[in-house]
Amino acid sequence: MTYQNDSIIKMKHTERVYYEHTDSTEFVYHTNYLKFMERARTEWLDSLGFSQGTLKQKHNIFFVVKTASINYIKPAKLDDILSLTIRELKMRRASLKIKQDIALGENQIICQGEFILACVSSVSSIPARIPSQILSAISDVN
Amino acid sequence: MTYQNDSIIKMKHTERVYYEHTDSTEFVYHTNYLKFMERARTEWLDSLGFSQGTLKQKHNIFFVVKTASINYIKPAKLDDILSLTIRELKMRRASLKIKQDIALGENQIICQGEFILACVSSVSSIPARIPSQILSAISDVN
Amino acid sequence: MTYQNDSIIKMKHTERVYYEHTDSTEFVYHTNYLKFMERARTEWLDSLGFSQGTLKQKHNIFFVVKTASINYIKPAKLDDILSLTIRELKMRRASLKIKQDIALGENQIICQGEFILACVSSVSSIPARIPSQILSAISDVN
Amino acid sequence: MTYQNDSIIKMKHTERVYYEHTDSTEFVYHTNYLKFMERARTEWLDSLGFSQGTLKQKHNIFFVVKTASINYIKPAKLDDILSLTIRELKMRRASLKIKQDIALGENQIICQGEFILACVSSVSSIPARIPSQILSAISDVN
Repeated sequence: MTYQNDSIIKMKHTERVYYEHTDSTEFVYHTNYLKFMERARTEWLDSLGFSQGTLKQKHNIFFVVKTASINYIKPAKLDDILSLTIRELKMRRASLKIKQDIALGENQIICQGEFILACVSSVSSIPARIPSQILSAISDVN
Repeated sequence: MTYQNDSIIKMKHTERVYYEHTDSTEFVYHTNYLKFMERARTEWLDSLGFSQGTLKQKHNIFFVVKTASINYIKPAKLDDILSLTIRELKMRRASLKIKQDIALGENQIICQGEFILACVSSVSSIPARIPSQILSAISDVN
Repeated sequence: MTYQNDSIIKMKHTERVYYEHTDSTEFVYHTNYLKFMERARTEWLDSLGFSQGTLKQKHNIFFVVKTASINYIKPAKLDDILSLTIRELKMRRASLKIKQDIALGENQIICQGEFILACVSSVSSIPARIPSQILSAISDVN
Repeated sequence: MTYQNDSIIKMKHTERVYYEHTDSTEFVYHTNYLKFMERARTEWLDSLGFSQGTLKQKHNIFFVVKTASINYIKPAKLDDILSLTIRELKMRRASLKIKQDIALGENQIICQGEFILACVSSVSSIPARIPSQILSAISDVN
């Protein structure tokens, strides 16, 4: 079964590089790009009316990262302002496949990520269907 | 009410500085010394038979940091091997006051911390008495 | 020698609690409040024209945390919006003493911190005078 | 050009899950598996005589993560003891491709990672050949 309802979305989110993100190479430590991308996903879901708290308390689900593929193109440094976009989104019944970019300033893509997010019941901790309100909110926007 | 049952304990725990701990000043980022000290406290409680999981599942409590005072004396760098000790411990019914040192190698103290840890019920999230088994295990050792 | 030029400043900075800040107690992990406060200090200096990069490259200095005292009053949770303020600032030749609050929403103070920040030469890594432009920028604002 | 000198290595490294690694889902936050794997790589290089400090100061290089692919199979929880192994290693002139596993206890694989690590000059920050001593140390062991 393949991912359906392909869509291109234009959500944008900004992050600043603080000391906490850098390491002694003077560049951003490699796991922090994944944190920036998770923040962008959280803000995107929130903008559709589904905060992480709402997902858990009202819909009894949360999303977990099943796979992550990251392509590090150019390193970011202290004080850099990074623009995060969700480039592509595919939906299945119990998972989302999402492509995200991190750009330096507006245009220079420095990191790309692709994630499969599985929907999990916050009650039983087993895979669950993505609630239909969430699927339609995502589809409506795109 | 003052802290009673003063004691000096000699628990030792070692941590290594990895890239994840450093920042672009080339030194360890200031919050990571607190993480090292929390690890040492976890290992100390574990050595007495009280893992974090045991505290939560069997005793229905966990400890939270109420106050932290840190004195940064000398910075640590990548690859440094740090020795953590618990220098002093005072007990009250619902809290512990603990002093911890971080040394570079065996002797050179580079960071000192003092913490008040409050015992909290994992069921109600309100302050709770420290279970007597834990208090006596701590006292017996010292 | 005591800290002089007492001043009260009203800088405000907002942070959101993401999954990365929480731990399995469901509350924010204790070191992350220090990260939030460092971000507020960075934004405050930046608003005065001194980004961390400017400090290092143009003024050849950076600030390091010498002491930190944190009072944890009430825990923050996922999705909380936190307001950070710098409450009080005292200056010496080579260090700043700063008091910072974290509030839930606008009013409820949940964490308080007091820090001594030492000015360090980025060339020699030894203590350095705070450049006069920085001292006057801080004084002018207050 | 393909990666050559395929080899299977048996390096093992252990990590414990502390509070700092978990998030409010009660499981380990997804970026921390990458931190565990970086620690294992650091310990592996160190066991061959190449600490991160030695690489930088003596050989004027460091390794940066160019790509990371992570497969999250089963989540880890507080107190879990994780065994990290380097499963496969391929060498090129200026990069390494490495496969790593994380197991719960000895046998149950809960996370798999594949990384391309590029060798970078610590002087010029541009790609550099992997020093021959390092290539032969890696080859000798396998």
